[in-house]
Amino acid sequence: MVHQQLLSFITQGRKTHDITDQVREVVSQSGIQMGMAHIFVQHTSCSLLLTENADPDVHRDLETLFGRIAPDGDSAYRHDMEGPDDMPAHARSVLAGSSLSIPVGGGRLLLGVWQGVYLWEHRHRSHQRRVMVTVMG
Amino acid sequence: MVHQQLLSFITQGRKTHDITDQVREVVSQSGIQMGMAHIFVQHTSCSLLLTENADPDVHRDLETLFGRIAPDGDSAYRHDMEGPDDMPAHARSVLAGSSLSIPVGGGRLLLGVWQGVYLWEHRHRSHQRRVMVTVMG
Amino acid sequence: MVHQQLLSFITQGRKTHDITDQVREVVSQSGIQMGMAHIFVQHTSCSLLLTENADPDVHRDLETLFGRIAPDGDSAYRHDMEGPDDMPAHARSVLAGSSLSIPVGGGRLLLGVWQGVYLWEHRHRSHQRRVMVTVMG
Repeated sequence: MVHQQLLSFITQGRKTHDITDQVREVVSQSGIQMGMAHIFVQHTSCSLLLTENADPDVHRDLETLFGRIAPDGDSAYRHDMEGPDDMPAHARSVLAGSSLSIPVGGGRLLLGVWQGVYLWEHRHRSHQRRVMVTVMG
Repeated sequence: MVHQQLLSFITQGRKTHDITDQVREVVSQSGIQMGMAHIFVQHTSCSLLLTENADPDVHRDLETLFGRIAPDGDSAYRHDMEGPDDMPAHARSVLAGSSLSIPVGGGRLLLGVWQGVYLWEHRHRSHQRRVMVTVMG
Repeated sequence: MVHQQLLSFITQGRKTHDITDQVREVVSQSGIQMGMAHIFVQHTSCSLLLTENADPDVHRDLETLFGRIAPDGDSAYRHDMEGPDDMPAHARSVLAGSSLSIPVGGGRLLLGVWQGVYLWEHRHRSHQRRVMVTVMG
């Protein structure tokens, strides 16, 4: 059994957006009791993130560390057509990943107590982001 | 067809723990011949790792590199409630990933000759870790 | 319904190889209308990459950044049996990942406009690489 639904989000610049409830809702609507939920962004300059949902400083610190790994406006970049955050966005997308897979059991997402699902915008401008959720079981 | 099983492990501080045999056993018990095994940690401070199973120095060198990317006790961290290894554990979890998906064929995990499945504890203390395995086919 | 097919590629040293068309072909042959395609390399020294398909400079810049994170011949490595690119290849494999999952809808891969699927060779020598594609739906 497969249930597929496209979600759409307007991001507000480089930060994380909690989408856990929207993903839970798709799983609930699917009626699938046991299996897996697959979440996928159809973009190369934002990521999905599975991380601590309690202290917002965790996301701030992740920004700090990812900013060191792929700094904005690094002089080594050759791909900078869309500005200093263009190439860093692609690099962050590769490092943090474009998809997440989460087990489904008892008709719900089997997340740990501290795990939340986030859409992580890597560009400084606002963007419309398409997130495809596929529940299989 | 879906088969789901929760595994539990007691880790011994920051190091890798080979869980390949336990995952193989779940695949075998599932009776599923062709499909995929999904492995998921319900935590934000440890990872799953698919890497070289022959030379333990590979894991030691991964520790060295991840220790550079997200050093313990970095003065930039704002999230350090649980100690100097708290934020590095979350960052490593994002970089190495919380889940793995491995193809299943002929009733077994289709790993390459040198691939092993590891639970990678990022905290210095021992922890009990929940690993959910979902086999679909 | 599950369809599984092994693809094989000869890589030409450390660079990316576009395999989007080959994966699309497997999805088409599967006849599966809705679900997911799972792509997996059976090796620990190359990766799969989902990234920009338009400007080759994106891949060049990713090389630059990954070369900083895991430099060839770093004096800290203990695993260097196969040369200065041996350990960096394992580290890149962990960071960029050994598998990709992409939603399938309407009988085709639901990639974004700018997303391409690449096999990323991390070794300097040419290698034969096995890529297992599993389509489920």
